[in-house]
Amino acid sequence: MEKIKVAIVGYGNVGRFALEALEACEDMVCVGIVRRNASAAGCPELQGYKVVSDIQELGKVDVAILATPSRSVEENALKYLSMGISTVDSFDIHSSIVDLRNTLAPVATANGAVSVISAGWDPGSDSVVRALMEGLAPKGITYTNFGPGRSMGHSVAAKAIDGVKEALSMTIPVGTGIHRRMVYVELEEGADFATVEAAIKADAYFSHDETHVIAVDNVDALNDVGHGVNMVRKGVSGKSHNQLFDFNMKINNPALTGQVLVLCARAATRQRPGCYTMIEIPVIDLLAGSRDELIKKLV
Amino acid sequence: MEKIKVAIVGYGNVGRFALEALEACEDMVCVGIVRRNASAAGCPELQGYKVVSDIQELGKVDVAILATPSRSVEENALKYLSMGISTVDSFDIHSSIVDLRNTLAPVATANGAVSVISAGWDPGSDSVVRALMEGLAPKGITYTNFGPGRSMGHSVAAKAIDGVKEALSMTIPVGTGIHRRMVYVELEEGADFATVEAAIKADAYFSHDETHVIAVDNVDALNDVGHGVNMVRKGVSGKSHNQLFDFNMKINNPALTGQVLVLCARAATRQRPGCYTMIEIPVIDLLAGSRDELIKKLV
Repeated sequence: MEKIKVAIVGYGNVGRFALEALEACEDMVCVGIVRRNASAAGCPELQGYKVVSDIQELGKVDVAILATPSRSVEENALKYLSMGISTVDSFDIHSSIVDLRNTLAPVATANGAVSVISAGWDPGSDSVVRALMEGLAPKGITYTNFGPGRSMGHSVAAKAIDGVKEALSMTIPVGTGIHRRMVYVELEEGADFATVEAAIKADAYFSHDETHVIAVDNVDALNDVGHGVNMVRKGVSGKSHNQLFDFNMKINNPALTGQVLVLCARAATRQRPGCYTMIEIPVIDLLAGSRDELIKKLV
Repeated sequence: MEKIKVAIVGYGNVGRFALEALEACEDMVCVGIVRRNASAAGCPELQGYKVVSDIQELGKVDVAILATPSRSVEENALKYLSMGISTVDSFDIHSSIVDLRNTLAPVATANGAVSVISAGWDPGSDSVVRALMEGLAPKGITYTNFGPGRSMGHSVAAKAIDGVKEALSMTIPVGTGIHRRMVYVELEEGADFATVEAAIKADAYFSHDETHVIAVDNVDALNDVGHGVNMVRKGVSGKSHNQLFDFNMKINNPALTGQVLVLCARAATRQRPGCYTMIEIPVIDLLAGSRDELIKKLV
């Protein structure tokens, strides 16, 4: 059987882990990396891979994994879909997912390609469990609790405060979808901690949550890519109340994102042209192997 | 929008809960109950429903929910699929699911109908989570732990032992997919407890598990339809080890089965003709409401 030919576009943290996930697959192959600078400098693991600035230098590509920031997903996806190359991304701006889907769908369809969007763990695999739990108890409340783990958006917001040299904002779940922010800051020389603390607590990213600011000598020494989720639903199946469900994970964050991107690259080759979120794709399409064997093992 | 017309075939415990789940839906309607005796006697909740012995008395039916024992699923499904009526069942003999699918698929396809099989909670919704977890960490081990809850198969096996008037076998999870059996027995007059205990422990249903037999005066006084699941997977995403996942539920067993049957009846109307297990169906198809709204809320 011919392997699915995958290119990785962007090679930051998630791109590296997507490559590892691809290397662990028998039915897929990485045909190259697309980077603006077309360089493998400093990346010994890219020995043996083509690194290019234009995807067309890679020959036939079935799926492009967009391991790029969410803000550049739309532009990149439109470019590759127009070439008839399917795309997968982990676009994570929850409020814009429907718009992105409606923008990409006609282009994917017109070019016989498939786009799978928001394919990370949240949005992504969590969305599948969240949608399933909603079905199992159609009346009820779901809480998604994140962490403990680093919030990229909050870390960047804290770093942008005057007097902050480096920052790490940890998301700590305190239940019912409420989160505490533990913000570790490295101050610039001469900066006043109390002023920085007040500015962070007043920032829109933090002002609605319980926020603690802690000065440290070295933010990098605290960095760990572990993360977690606890999703819990209590609700009603039919007319029977007190149905209880929960899903938990403790994971290496970029490794799981890279894995999900690769699962969805596989699934992209099995959908009809169009644009899909993960809840619109049969779970079996994420998996390698024969359908009968998968059903026998997993159903 | 026209409501999906559903018939319930069989009206035991699961059928009753499927009716409740249907009554809680706005997009579906129960057009009648099919029972061998065509009688609503003793079922005040069936006032206002047609109860018939032949589904053709119900007029147009989109989907028949087969709330019958697993052993009669194939025969019933073949009958209704041949009429072009889609079917949903909670067939739970894990080892025969692939065979059932391969038997029903051509008949469904030939008649423009859809069959969703093994649509309960295990097999069923658990299968979706199990398949998803397998994808999130393709190398690793999943354990499915059931209970505490009644095992119908084990209860029937215990009741079949000489000297047992009534029996209840509770499945108790002790981790790593291993289960303890707590067997409560009501003895027939003159039966010897030690003999019954030895016979139960020697039975093939029990001989491989830690089994405790307890004599009680009244088995019925112990009956509770609560059940539970704990599925846990530890594995590798890409090349990153120690990725931890678990899914738990504590539920009214027949109520959840009835709810899943109804979700899959809805999904049946959205698939192309053929036979599907739940891992082959996009989760979004289980849910009522517009696609955009569901994506906005759940992804």
